[in-house]
Amino acid sequence: MERIRVRSGAFPYDVVVGRGAWRALKSFPVGNYSSIFVLTEGGLWKRWGETFCRESGLRNPGLVLIPSGERSKALRMVERVASGLLSQGADRRSLLIAMGGGVVGDLGGFVASTYMRGIDYVQVPTTVVAQVDSAIGGKTAVDVGAMKNLIGTFYPPRLVLAEPLVLASLGERTFRSGLYEVLKHAILAGPRFFALMEKSLDSLRPQNGRLLAPILARAARVKVEVVSRDEREGNLRRVLNLGHTIGHALEEATRYRRFLHGEAVGWGMMGSFRIGARLGLLKPAEENRMVRLIRRVGPLPPIKDLEAEKILALLPRDKKAVSGNLHWVIVVRIGKVRIVSDVPTEVVRAALEDLKHGSAEHRAAN
Amino acid sequence: MERIRVRSGAFPYDVVVGRGAWRALKSFPVGNYSSIFVLTEGGLWKRWGETFCRESGLRNPGLVLIPSGERSKALRMVERVASGLLSQGADRRSLLIAMGGGVVGDLGGFVASTYMRGIDYVQVPTTVVAQVDSAIGGKTAVDVGAMKNLIGTFYPPRLVLAEPLVLASLGERTFRSGLYEVLKHAILAGPRFFALMEKSLDSLRPQNGRLLAPILARAARVKVEVVSRDEREGNLRRVLNLGHTIGHALEEATRYRRFLHGEAVGWGMMGSFRIGARLGLLKPAEENRMVRLIRRVGPLPPIKDLEAEKILALLPRDKKAVSGNLHWVIVVRIGKVRIVSDVPTEVVRAALEDLKHGSAEHRAAN
Repeated sequence: MERIRVRSGAFPYDVVVGRGAWRALKSFPVGNYSSIFVLTEGGLWKRWGETFCRESGLRNPGLVLIPSGERSKALRMVERVASGLLSQGADRRSLLIAMGGGVVGDLGGFVASTYMRGIDYVQVPTTVVAQVDSAIGGKTAVDVGAMKNLIGTFYPPRLVLAEPLVLASLGERTFRSGLYEVLKHAILAGPRFFALMEKSLDSLRPQNGRLLAPILARAARVKVEVVSRDEREGNLRRVLNLGHTIGHALEEATRYRRFLHGEAVGWGMMGSFRIGARLGLLKPAEENRMVRLIRRVGPLPPIKDLEAEKILALLPRDKKAVSGNLHWVIVVRIGKVRIVSDVPTEVVRAALEDLKHGSAEHRAAN
Repeated sequence: MERIRVRSGAFPYDVVVGRGAWRALKSFPVGNYSSIFVLTEGGLWKRWGETFCRESGLRNPGLVLIPSGERSKALRMVERVASGLLSQGADRRSLLIAMGGGVVGDLGGFVASTYMRGIDYVQVPTTVVAQVDSAIGGKTAVDVGAMKNLIGTFYPPRLVLAEPLVLASLGERTFRSGLYEVLKHAILAGPRFFALMEKSLDSLRPQNGRLLAPILARAARVKVEVVSRDEREGNLRRVLNLGHTIGHALEEATRYRRFLHGEAVGWGMMGSFRIGARLGLLKPAEENRMVRLIRRVGPLPPIKDLEAEKILALLPRDKKAVSGNLHWVIVVRIGKVRIVSDVPTEVVRAALEDLKHGSAEHRAAN
């Protein structure tokens, strides 16, 4: 079990990763709060609620259950959760525990940041992506219509408890989807973490907590280091968007039905490599090494049928854009990225065509 | 025209009060923003939009119009406003100008604090209450169901422009309602401001900008001083709730249909005087002087028909309560209040009965 300290503008907080992480709630001052509420999904609570209470030492917390799925990340649900908290007597000194994947974490963080103008909260991430990425850093959000994360806040949690045990109940595909984000962190971190992933990837299974825990901790540490130095998304925090510019466009082009988020990021990373290669910033050998590892995670839903023009058209709506100017995160080599904000549309279009026609071909074409 | 500096945790900002306040936007760095949007009500913009643009120097700002009235203070409207901003191309570097009364200010501030995780905004308050109170201090909020301000943030504006000219189009009753809040600030400030109000009250008219401006500035200064020392509602900021504990209950008991907010606060202040008197903290002469001035503002909607029990029952839902424990703001003398958190229910009930049976009677009974 590792305890990683996050330096945040408001206050420092810990990310606890590894078997037994939930027990760390015992050394958290829960007694300072007037009442404690868990926001989670029904199925998850049924499967893990008892274990969570036993390990964390919580007794009969208030419960607010939401339906699973991205559609819960909505202002309508904020209203429902706030009403649920109110009717159970939550006040300004209550503590909210958000237990779940990215949806619960983003929604729970947003509710915590706005309920009676802000209450404390703890993140208990239960998916790979949430454990190494979304539960850390204090970004909260809900969607508005088709626009993901249009409404949100920067509001750090008081504690993050990432218990790998809970991953055992993830579906295989959801688990693998999270591994793309782990790879993203390995690419950002450098050759040592990347080589470790090359070595261990095939053994990573939801049930294999012993092998998983140190890798999750290492991936979480990448996020912690970035957000500790840049909480509010200046250029440094932007590196975490690697693969997300194209990834979001792919998700949007398929109305969030074809790809799991991590899968879209897998494609998105390979697309950004293509841009880097075409700009002469990334060498073929380095690109191939990264593409090989991404491909090893598993099969990705196809993108061949998606029009490059459609994807291009969806890019400028990325909300990271400032006045329409996209900031591309381009890998220069494993462990080193550069933000490039003037990539010609032609290059992006060509990169998307490369991507559609398969990595083998684009390696040959290079 | 006065310029009052607010010290806020995030950054200092100015409240500009008086004839010509809108012109102060000319010395604000509007050129640093990618685009500028005005959130306001249709009728208000029709009446004042042209003047505002001329005086402020703004040219063709984007417009987002909302219906007038408390019902617009809802998450549903946050969604609508955010969609409107997005469709007009607002991004992270856009500036939002919230022009209106408390509803527009609270909603606009909330949207600004959450749109793409926060954009800058300017408050252009157009009612007395907004100019001296709600537009200052960075509290934003929307209602959830019957619960006022359940969801909100602390998010200071970059500038507040209080132009008394615009008050000329307020209805007489709305204008007078704002004067109760001015009196609240005078009571908090002390004998000099209070005596000024005794002298000038009868001459205060929406059209009488010359007399109004310095009084508005003085009242705004009270708010500025409090929030500069306590942005997040510790005990100091709590003094601003004078009259609001009973006031909110009265509004809720009548489903926000009978009282304008300031009118409920007028009753609420007199109720809190009664509590203070019954606790032996406030002397009769001092109470009478304050009650007389409040009564001089104008007729208040009746409360005789409201059950004291019903009002009592609505008190503990006040969200300022921490674990059900109400913090009463009790005036000890003009210019001095005390927070009392253990007022016996009996005393509150008796005070409400006093209030219902009229100030003349309760003065006699005292």
